[in-house]
Amino acid sequence: MKIDVLSLFPDMFEGPLGDSILGKAKDKGALDIEITNFRDYSTNKHGNVDDYPFGGGAGMLLQAQPIFDALEATQNKALESGLSKGRIILLDPAGKKFDQNEAEQLAKEDHLTFICGHYEGYDERIKSLVTDEYSLGDFVLTGGELPAMVMIDATARLLDNVLGNDESAPGDSFSSGLLEYPQYTRPADFRGMKVPDVLTSGNHQKIEEWRQKESLRKTYNRRPDLIDYSKLTDLQKKLLAEIKIEEE
Amino acid sequence: MKIDVLSLFPDMFEGPLGDSILGKAKDKGALDIEITNFRDYSTNKHGNVDDYPFGGGAGMLLQAQPIFDALEATQNKALESGLSKGRIILLDPAGKKFDQNEAEQLAKEDHLTFICGHYEGYDERIKSLVTDEYSLGDFVLTGGELPAMVMIDATARLLDNVLGNDESAPGDSFSSGLLEYPQYTRPADFRGMKVPDVLTSGNHQKIEEWRQKESLRKTYNRRPDLIDYSKLTDLQKKLLAEIKIEEE
Repeated sequence: MKIDVLSLFPDMFEGPLGDSILGKAKDKGALDIEITNFRDYSTNKHGNVDDYPFGGGAGMLLQAQPIFDALEATQNKALESGLSKGRIILLDPAGKKFDQNEAEQLAKEDHLTFICGHYEGYDERIKSLVTDEYSLGDFVLTGGELPAMVMIDATARLLDNVLGNDESAPGDSFSSGLLEYPQYTRPADFRGMKVPDVLTSGNHQKIEEWRQKESLRKTYNRRPDLIDYSKLTDLQKKLLAEIKIEEE
Repeated sequence: MKIDVLSLFPDMFEGPLGDSILGKAKDKGALDIEITNFRDYSTNKHGNVDDYPFGGGAGMLLQAQPIFDALEATQNKALESGLSKGRIILLDPAGKKFDQNEAEQLAKEDHLTFICGHYEGYDERIKSLVTDEYSLGDFVLTGGELPAMVMIDATARLLDNVLGNDESAPGDSFSSGLLEYPQYTRPADFRGMKVPDVLTSGNHQKIEEWRQKESLRKTYNRRPDLIDYSKLTDLQKKLLAEIKIEEE
């Protein structure tokens, strides 16, 4: 997958994209991330990319021209190397909520472009370029760089060959529709806090049932909206009935 | 504000925290961010921080010991310098949703600590250390570093003296309860796309009314759940009535 990022702060991406899983994905060739500083495309002689808002008000707005021209350049390069136009993504508080289902859809594309806003805002005409507006949540950030990195991370980890077998995540929250069960590793007794007996019992059927039950319990207590009753197995229905009694 | 971050990937923070607004906040003394690699606190002779899950299954889990000891060290240091214990935050998909209201609450603290998970998950006993579990949204990431940075960014921009006057954000989405109106900057005609006439009219009352109306329109179309009818002014109620007819 090719990912283009248009940003005024390319250095922000170095650490997050160089280290950890995304760095590995790049090393394995599963991911090719290119950061383009759209200031380089400003036709203004001082390299300015922002100006005052029409109608007055505080703050500076990103102008359309540098982003239009930077995107034209990255898109031409992508098309020449046989990639599709792909999705052109703007992070905006008014965008649709990014979630695991959206990450799975994005992971099917061969090319994504993220346009990162900054300063007070951007010229509305920039939106004519984009195919998708996303929001991470109901909070305000200083720029689009961090949410772009979050979306890249959530998407890239779903690509083939990015997560090794030992890192693969069959019990991931959301991918199963339920929150993950509690997990424990050594020591069995850490400063007086003990691992539940069942996990050291060696009885795999009981362990599996305990995990299903605790996964259901956590989801029931914290995110009951995630439980799709029509998709529960008979065992899960029985466990959930027990949980409801136990939690009362 | 002092922010402690416990992470296995301290390099991930360099770009995002060095550049942009957060870098400025550090330079101005409004923010003191310290990244602690909890691998340095492993008592394992190989410096390991993870182990297999009890009960079997794929993946490695972060062990309790390195995180317990790293937190004890950072907390002792904070208390010695007169700071409170503050909030100890774990990023977890089962946590409460982070939003602007939560950011405003966190911005009142003098000390925050973020514990960043990684790998497949972490030993459940680590949760006994934390005061708050947060989730950015219903998606899975490779680690807690990026969502921690998002939360730090959303919180730090609310601190005094972090945003300059020209960057301050009176029309921010969410802080006013509504999404932001569309904004435009020069040129007035960009490749045939023109700025709405009202914005170049010089009539400030009409501009203000247009902005209120477009802010309401965007919120009505995209996030009607954000509109608190009891808090609308008479003018806003009138504008919203017009919008409902126009949008039909």
